[in-house]
Amino acid sequence: MAYLNENYLKLQAGYLFPEIARRVREFCEKNPDAAKGLIRCGIGDVTEPLPQAAIDAMKRAADELGHRETFRGYGPEQGYEFLRSTIARKDFRDRKIDIADDEIFVSDGAKCDCGFILDILGEQNRVAVPDPVYPVYVDTNVMAGHTGPSREDGSYEGILYLPCTAENNFVPAPPREHIDLVYLCFPNNPTGAVATHEQLARWIEYAHRHDALILFDAAYEAYISDPKIPRSIFEIDGAGECAIEFRSFSKTGGFTGVRCGFTVMPKTLLARTESGKRLPLHPLWHRRWSTKSNSVSYPVQRGAEALYSPEGRKQVRALVDHYMGNAKILLEACEQSGLRVYGGVNAPYIWVKTPNDLTSWEMFDRMMREINVVITPGVGFGAQGEGFIRISAFNSRENAEEVGRRLKKFR
Amino acid sequence: MAYLNENYLKLQAGYLFPEIARRVREFCEKNPDAAKGLIRCGIGDVTEPLPQAAIDAMKRAADELGHRETFRGYGPEQGYEFLRSTIARKDFRDRKIDIADDEIFVSDGAKCDCGFILDILGEQNRVAVPDPVYPVYVDTNVMAGHTGPSREDGSYEGILYLPCTAENNFVPAPPREHIDLVYLCFPNNPTGAVATHEQLARWIEYAHRHDALILFDAAYEAYISDPKIPRSIFEIDGAGECAIEFRSFSKTGGFTGVRCGFTVMPKTLLARTESGKRLPLHPLWHRRWSTKSNSVSYPVQRGAEALYSPEGRKQVRALVDHYMGNAKILLEACEQSGLRVYGGVNAPYIWVKTPNDLTSWEMFDRMMREINVVITPGVGFGAQGEGFIRISAFNSRENAEEVGRRLKKFR
Repeated sequence: MAYLNENYLKLQAGYLFPEIARRVREFCEKNPDAAKGLIRCGIGDVTEPLPQAAIDAMKRAADELGHRETFRGYGPEQGYEFLRSTIARKDFRDRKIDIADDEIFVSDGAKCDCGFILDILGEQNRVAVPDPVYPVYVDTNVMAGHTGPSREDGSYEGILYLPCTAENNFVPAPPREHIDLVYLCFPNNPTGAVATHEQLARWIEYAHRHDALILFDAAYEAYISDPKIPRSIFEIDGAGECAIEFRSFSKTGGFTGVRCGFTVMPKTLLARTESGKRLPLHPLWHRRWSTKSNSVSYPVQRGAEALYSPEGRKQVRALVDHYMGNAKILLEACEQSGLRVYGGVNAPYIWVKTPNDLTSWEMFDRMMREINVVITPGVGFGAQGEGFIRISAFNSRENAEEVGRRLKKFR
Repeated sequence: MAYLNENYLKLQAGYLFPEIARRVREFCEKNPDAAKGLIRCGIGDVTEPLPQAAIDAMKRAADELGHRETFRGYGPEQGYEFLRSTIARKDFRDRKIDIADDEIFVSDGAKCDCGFILDILGEQNRVAVPDPVYPVYVDTNVMAGHTGPSREDGSYEGILYLPCTAENNFVPAPPREHIDLVYLCFPNNPTGAVATHEQLARWIEYAHRHDALILFDAAYEAYISDPKIPRSIFEIDGAGECAIEFRSFSKTGGFTGVRCGFTVMPKTLLARTESGKRLPLHPLWHRRWSTKSNSVSYPVQRGAEALYSPEGRKQVRALVDHYMGNAKILLEACEQSGLRVYGGVNAPYIWVKTPNDLTSWEMFDRMMREINVVITPGVGFGAQGEGFIRISAFNSRENAEEVGRRLKKFR
């Protein structure tokens, strides 16, 4: 009989969002009146319309496919040149970051790439992740057999967890011990923390000393307004030899349902074989895409390209400003109600300490009951998230303002 | 230093298509006049415009995303209900094949799924592939570490190759020995062979006896016109306990650049753990998609759905008829020039025996030189492909007719 991948059996049930859904359902059944006014600030999904520039470009591309002269079949597996060169130029070289067109690999989203990247890495790597953390980093390592079984608190044996706490501003320092692979995400989901140039430089320094690889998730880089905060790991000297960056159009152009992102894979990046040979990862990543994919839908790639046009950029800016306007409203409301808050300045997530030592779930229940607002319990992102909640700024302005008003009444 | 996946180093260079490109380039440089009339029947990519129903649906969906009321963010990771239920009903239940909506998993193509499926399977499986074969099946197994090194003839140790020859009508019988996993593809790429009900039933019988799993690639099922030839493995009794089917809109709706396909994963399908526990694969596949993907672009899913509308079906039918009209022209021309031909009746590929014991590459060179037609050397698909060439029917009618005329002059 065919064998299954037993590593999947180690995975904890996808506990967080189903449990939120269960509690919301139960609450709504018992409180039909309150249910009508329930506002969800839980999931990190965009709510505002897609930029018109992207819509127009996608429609034009669809029309092109309707004529033999402009029809396109299989595209290059690593993405169309028009998109790779636009990204490399506008996101990197125009900002004095030396990235070549063919170091950009177009994909259907940063989530996918965060999983796919393990395809080209060995099983021997010692992996570190921040805690709390976006669950995909850990779960994909579990699936790939890079961990032991799970512990009672939901963590996995064989992974080094780096605590992110108020004391370190939710930016973990490099560990004392050796690791081969570390996931970093800034602006951070769920804490909304950002890393300074100096903090990232310490990680680069660690990576060079330990020959470690940094998997840098920059899906939220557009939310950084502080010019001193790096938006790419490649702004830091030496990153080209030790880092891979994941980017997404999900939270810039509102592409969560359109699906497009990319990976920056420098050609200078090496990894080792068991026997100690040092080889570039770029050809492996290139081969992975050639063999396992036919890249992203042509109209979608045209839509992504349009986000870089003058109108596209204005529309993306307006979207980001909209969500960050929500963040400001929510942040101030939390502060006015006496809550201890983090994030929400260069990130669309607000990380809130629960008052009176409430657990994350107790706070979840209280907020749903008392002000009819659904948030995400911090403990769902890791053991260190206990005693915190995440409030998402992805909402309509109307909803954000209403949540702001309700938060001020929350004591 | 981070370890890389050394299995990638076992992969043969992607020899076939780059070598074709090199020879074509060289020929064109030396023969600029002939180059102008060169016709390519090599790659299996569609050439005709996308069905208008799909274009209209994609444009409507893009417009929906432009309004807050109809905007959609993250969709269900396994695909939208509207598409899963349409597929299950129209491709299966309407044809008396009992497949539930949630046994359909939408993806960005059969190529991707053929690779992804290994995510949920164990490393202990003994794998068999036909020879010749679509290279993705083998290469993804190499990448996953399921093979030994490659041999001189391009095959890999640890894989059982099932010869497809004129003697068995290019449909391999189940082997005498035990295997856990077998890839079957009908209508076949590259040979154009189809499997009868009886031939597939023998495989199902083998799979039950050996508790083996059949990975059935039905990407070309729409090209079957003979009502006696099964279009789905699930037309055969007992397949629900031993088979997974991959389907694609690439060659039906011309979606090679739009990217959409699906996998049929029956809930009745079990696989084993090392300790002999038998568990369903469906929850693992569901989890794989939840964790590693956010499904396919919403406008693309609407485009795929539209292929099932009355106009969409008519347009798909016209596309398939167009390509099969080409196949008929090419097949007859080959026969008239005295070549021994296979396939091309229920499949868009014609598999041609080279005359006078020419090798595949000698025939390639002769056809390019003498009639200025580019084909694919059969040996590129496996050792048993030596002495054959593949002619693709994916072309304009004008080109197919011209190739037909030239073939008749080919002696």
